[in-house]
Amino acid sequence: MSLTEKIRNGDSRAVAKLITMVENDFQNAQPFLKELHQYCGKAIVVGITGPPGSGKSTITDKLTKHLRKMNKKVGIIAIDPSSPFSGGAILGDRIRMQDLTTDKDVFIRSVGARGHLGGLSRSTQAVVKIMDAMGKDFIFIETVGVGQSEIDVIKVSDVVLLVVMPGMGDDIQVIKAGIMEIGDIFVVNKSDRDGSDKLIAEIEMMLHLIEKEEKWHPPILKTVGTENIGIDVLWKEVEKCTDYLKESGEMFLRRKNRTRKEIFDLFQESWREMFFQFISEERLEKEVERVLKQNDNPYNAVKKLSAIFKENLFKEGE
Amino acid sequence: MSLTEKIRNGDSRAVAKLITMVENDFQNAQPFLKELHQYCGKAIVVGITGPPGSGKSTITDKLTKHLRKMNKKVGIIAIDPSSPFSGGAILGDRIRMQDLTTDKDVFIRSVGARGHLGGLSRSTQAVVKIMDAMGKDFIFIETVGVGQSEIDVIKVSDVVLLVVMPGMGDDIQVIKAGIMEIGDIFVVNKSDRDGSDKLIAEIEMMLHLIEKEEKWHPPILKTVGTENIGIDVLWKEVEKCTDYLKESGEMFLRRKNRTRKEIFDLFQESWREMFFQFISEERLEKEVERVLKQNDNPYNAVKKLSAIFKENLFKEGE
Repeated sequence: MSLTEKIRNGDSRAVAKLITMVENDFQNAQPFLKELHQYCGKAIVVGITGPPGSGKSTITDKLTKHLRKMNKKVGIIAIDPSSPFSGGAILGDRIRMQDLTTDKDVFIRSVGARGHLGGLSRSTQAVVKIMDAMGKDFIFIETVGVGQSEIDVIKVSDVVLLVVMPGMGDDIQVIKAGIMEIGDIFVVNKSDRDGSDKLIAEIEMMLHLIEKEEKWHPPILKTVGTENIGIDVLWKEVEKCTDYLKESGEMFLRRKNRTRKEIFDLFQESWREMFFQFISEERLEKEVERVLKQNDNPYNAVKKLSAIFKENLFKEGE
Repeated sequence: MSLTEKIRNGDSRAVAKLITMVENDFQNAQPFLKELHQYCGKAIVVGITGPPGSGKSTITDKLTKHLRKMNKKVGIIAIDPSSPFSGGAILGDRIRMQDLTTDKDVFIRSVGARGHLGGLSRSTQAVVKIMDAMGKDFIFIETVGVGQSEIDVIKVSDVVLLVVMPGMGDDIQVIKAGIMEIGDIFVVNKSDRDGSDKLIAEIEMMLHLIEKEEKWHPPILKTVGTENIGIDVLWKEVEKCTDYLKESGEMFLRRKNRTRKEIFDLFQESWREMFFQFISEERLEKEVERVLKQNDNPYNAVKKLSAIFKENLFKEGE
């Protein structure tokens, strides 16, 4: 069996192999991804984001167990751009999911920062594709924090859950406008703590300020993840939301955005690779030193480097 | 007086004007930045990062007041990649700094996400340049969170303070390896709370694991920002650290990295702009739809778009 056939049969070792290739040697992974692309588009991608400590992992864990009871296959991608690592059970949070890792119909993977700009987004999209092709019904993308790189990644989900908790105090800023806007469903986790009603009122107020034109009004749900409270109601809302998104054509638009982003990321990465192919390290260092020593400015340096880049490109094109 | 002369004279309205230009119309801002570049390199850039709620703004505020007593001129840049806004006093935190905003020798500016990829880093570098040229002695770059985009920005500081606080619980993950490594000085703020000694022990252990080859061993300092406790000791450590960095040549290396990043960011942005100039929206949409409808895959789409891009570039070069 070929690697892609193995992946389609759900062979997790084959999946792990291709994901590692995506991270270490994207050029060689591309033909496989190309082949898998035709089997994609079936999985629903659920983004789960929110400030650190709000209990995103617990929510993901409980939702996964809920779905397993319905015999659905699940993929989990943990996005951690601040981690230089990627791979298996590295995050402390992952430990809590240990009982899931023995379930062959659940595939968990962390995606770390792995060097390249744009790489986080590119890697995540590739891992989604692989999990989709291996037949997962639902793919959770869970972020560690709420930085811009995480938001960029989560934006391309089909549906986004924003998990918050009472007692964040001043840190209501972490769920401010920019992030509020991407939430389709709000989850007030750890809702047995003081202040959850106040938080709900604040979210309602902020949602009112945003005033989306869409027909979908993001519900705000209470959960206590660790106690499994509110999980089934939450999932029902996710289903309701995905139904709405499908019927309204909004999901098609989102997937279009995801595809556009995927194409642009791939484009940018390929040109980035060319930069380092066409411009030698010595040449770049020479410009850096000149700028640093005030013999030139960075804008002229870029002009010069762009000229070299073009020249090489022209030569290659001949 | 020209705009750049006004900026060099510390005219804050001229400064604000150029910063707005940087954000809205970088092409037109470039000649001014080019002119200012020769007056740069004097300011020390101090990065202040750490998880939300650790009190970074308070530390920045108190350090600024400390420096003002020594008659030093200060610039403050607040990085908030999750905010679609940029400009003046938008963040809740900024409100606490209101008494600083009336001080003409303190210049405060927020930098938001403003669309473009790489733009956050580019804007921040430009604002540093402008504040440097206007004669600031110290420039603080403060982040809201600890996402990858913030880390990328803060990395280019001359010296980095990592602010944490006791009681983050599970969220010790937010100060894990990737972020630990960039801290030159650790600040355990809110150290009057329970658990600060435990936190210090944990940081020491983690620092031990990193085992840098450098001679500089990051000190771990206790502060209570709101009470102004520990601020003078902290600043002495910052001075000690910058002295070390200068003497060891490490600061030169960091500025070299900053310059390299600046050049690469500018390069990438200019090619990004060309993409949208050479490839029409309709053309891109056509490919997106084809991929989405499974008539093609994204890798082929990129190949096709790259060919169009090159063709246009060749035409332009003729």
